[in-house]
Amino acid sequence: VLTKRIAVLPGDGIGPEVCAEALKVLEAVSERFGHQFELDVQLMGACAIDATGDPLPESTLQACFEADAILLGAIGDPKYDNNPAAKVRPEQGLLRLRKSLGLFANIRPVTAYDVLIEHSPLKADRIQGADMLIYRELTGGIYFGEKGRTADGAYDHCTYSREEIVRIAHLAFQSATTRRNKLTLVDKANVLETSRLWREVVQQIAPEYPSVAVDYLFVDNAAMQMILNPKQFDVILTENMFGDIISDEASVIAGSLGLLPSASVGETAALFEPIHGSFPQGKGLGIANPIATILSVAMMLEHFGLQEEANLVKDGVDYALRRNVLTPELNKEHPYTTEQVGCFIADYV
Amino acid sequence: VLTKRIAVLPGDGIGPEVCAEALKVLEAVSERFGHQFELDVQLMGACAIDATGDPLPESTLQACFEADAILLGAIGDPKYDNNPAAKVRPEQGLLRLRKSLGLFANIRPVTAYDVLIEHSPLKADRIQGADMLIYRELTGGIYFGEKGRTADGAYDHCTYSREEIVRIAHLAFQSATTRRNKLTLVDKANVLETSRLWREVVQQIAPEYPSVAVDYLFVDNAAMQMILNPKQFDVILTENMFGDIISDEASVIAGSLGLLPSASVGETAALFEPIHGSFPQGKGLGIANPIATILSVAMMLEHFGLQEEANLVKDGVDYALRRNVLTPELNKEHPYTTEQVGCFIADYV
Ligand SMILES: CC(C)[C@H](C(=O)O)[C@@H](O)C(=O)O
Ligand SMILES: CC(C)[C@H](C(=O)O)[C@@H](O)C(=O)O
Repeated sequence: VLTKRIAVLPGDGIGPEVCAEALKVLEAVSERFGHQFELDVQLMGACAIDATGDPLPESTLQACFEADAILLGAIGDPKYDNNPAAKVRPEQGLLRLRKSLGLFANIRPVTAYDVLIEHSPLKADRIQGADMLIYRELTGGIYFGEKGRTADGAYDHCTYSREEIVRIAHLAFQSATTRRNKLTLVDKANVLETSRLWREVVQQIAPEYPSVAVDYLFVDNAAMQMILNPKQFDVILTENMFGDIISDEASVIAGSLGLLPSASVGETAALFEPIHGSFPQGKGLGIANPIATILSVAMMLEHFGLQEEANLVKDGVDYALRRNVLTPELNKEHPYTTEQVGCFIADYV
Repeated sequence: VLTKRIAVLPGDGIGPEVCAEALKVLEAVSERFGHQFELDVQLMGACAIDATGDPLPESTLQACFEADAILLGAIGDPKYDNNPAAKVRPEQGLLRLRKSLGLFANIRPVTAYDVLIEHSPLKADRIQGADMLIYRELTGGIYFGEKGRTADGAYDHCTYSREEIVRIAHLAFQSATTRRNKLTLVDKANVLETSRLWREVVQQIAPEYPSVAVDYLFVDNAAMQMILNPKQFDVILTENMFGDIISDEASVIAGSLGLLPSASVGETAALFEPIHGSFPQGKGLGIANPIATILSVAMMLEHFGLQEEANLVKDGVDYALRRNVLTPELNKEHPYTTEQVGCFIADYV
């Protein structure tokens, strides 16, 4: 029996709704197995700007530092997106949180669910059996480099240190050894110096993992291969921006963004969140799919070493998928609400 | 009757093979309509490094400056890709050529061909009728910023001036007015300062084109939307690196990379090339699809104002598609060789 402290950041848009369902499932796990999960709910994102002027208030950051894990819903609001003059943005909160906690590795599993295969825009035979794990570097690169304006233009600097690449590369190689022993580095080494450094580091580390076959793909080609032949991928390793693009693209394989969880880990901290955004148009309508957040809770349980508990949550999700207890994007005929899907899975647990 | 001087850069891998077929078609146009095309064949890419040590020899650049248009096959060789220490790379030749000639706008049409619809990895109903034109900025951004190494890392700088954005934005807007009057800017304005500048400039220019509806998509979302719902796109405008990724991804809609041409234009110069690479593994096997290069010739003819001639070439391609006179990636049963496809289309013309 464990006691864990969890900082919960529901965020904006549909974030609070999907978080509420994931917490129901967590509560069910706690009742069934006797674990204690102490929740500390905090503001982040547009809601935090509206309340305090800061997308990541000090109290939120503090709560995250003190927690054993963080559960995040989603952040972002269109009122900040099309306003290039906005000085404060919800996304700054997320980026600052990642950096402050040192969450350098974002891990996204992508699998084709058999029961959902006809929902994918891709033909069934291309995706059946696809199963990959994307390691995206999360605290370096062009997201965090110097940026600004000049008299007549703007700039963003992309930088990577060797050490930033080494630490995530080891995680990705280790993970490959527990899977199908294949690692694909996605870069643009024919043009970018940082990409050449990534390739160099990966080539240097590779001999430490002799069982792992290493492959190199330029990001433009990878964006194509992801659709042409997604089954070729096992573990993908890539830098921050390429990972952002490639992993969102890969989500089409699962048939819905609403199914995909992610973990962001560092030396000490760990954050779990669905990969989808805050979908402001869907807010309050009960149509948001809570499964990605529920599976993020499963990843959190695994992180705590609670494999049995995690498996039970995943089984509950599978059961909902098989019984078609799904929100409208996956079940047009007889849609269930966000809450109904959450309750169904919590009941199963 | 026109006289035009064309610099031909066959390049590496399958480049020379597909160029040869495209030139056959050009020759057929010249015979039929009486135009004079003076060809000046030059080295560029890995073949130029091997011959002269320079991927873009002075004589090649000179020939390009003197030409009315440039036809490029493809460049690149794996022996340079996995060698981070290589000092000279084929790609440098291409980048230098684009920069020297001021080819700031890369234009890529992507359409779903009805007869090939079952070759796409995407389901037919998602792509039927998809028809977009991608404007990729080609001489700015992170490709051309300062890059280098530090004691323990590497950097690439991304910069854009207002003027670099303005000039291609006008081209994209103008083109939208001749099509379905929709323009989508792809950026990452929630994170990058250069993207915010792109959004700012596009917002400022938009009122000059009141018929055009403007849409903004973050690049991660765009990579997803391209697969989920490609029919939503008419004209896409984006910066260099995002354009590289998104346009290669979009190629899956056509069912084969081997079908997609591109034009790169500047104030004075214009270069035409297939979007595929040099496919070194396919070299000399007669399996390379020459259609992308033949359609690049059609774009060149349009650029010369020869619309009837261009249409005839496109009709020839359509005829080959309908009659299944296609290379193995599109016709497994009764494949035709590169040469046979080229002759078939040239004969039609
Ligand atoms: C909101 C945004 C800053 C973020 C990112 O690009 O990292 C999001 O797209 C993600 O992938 O988590
Ligand atoms: C070869 C490479 C430098 C080039 C690019 O990325 O621009 C290619 O991928 C392209 O899209 O023309």
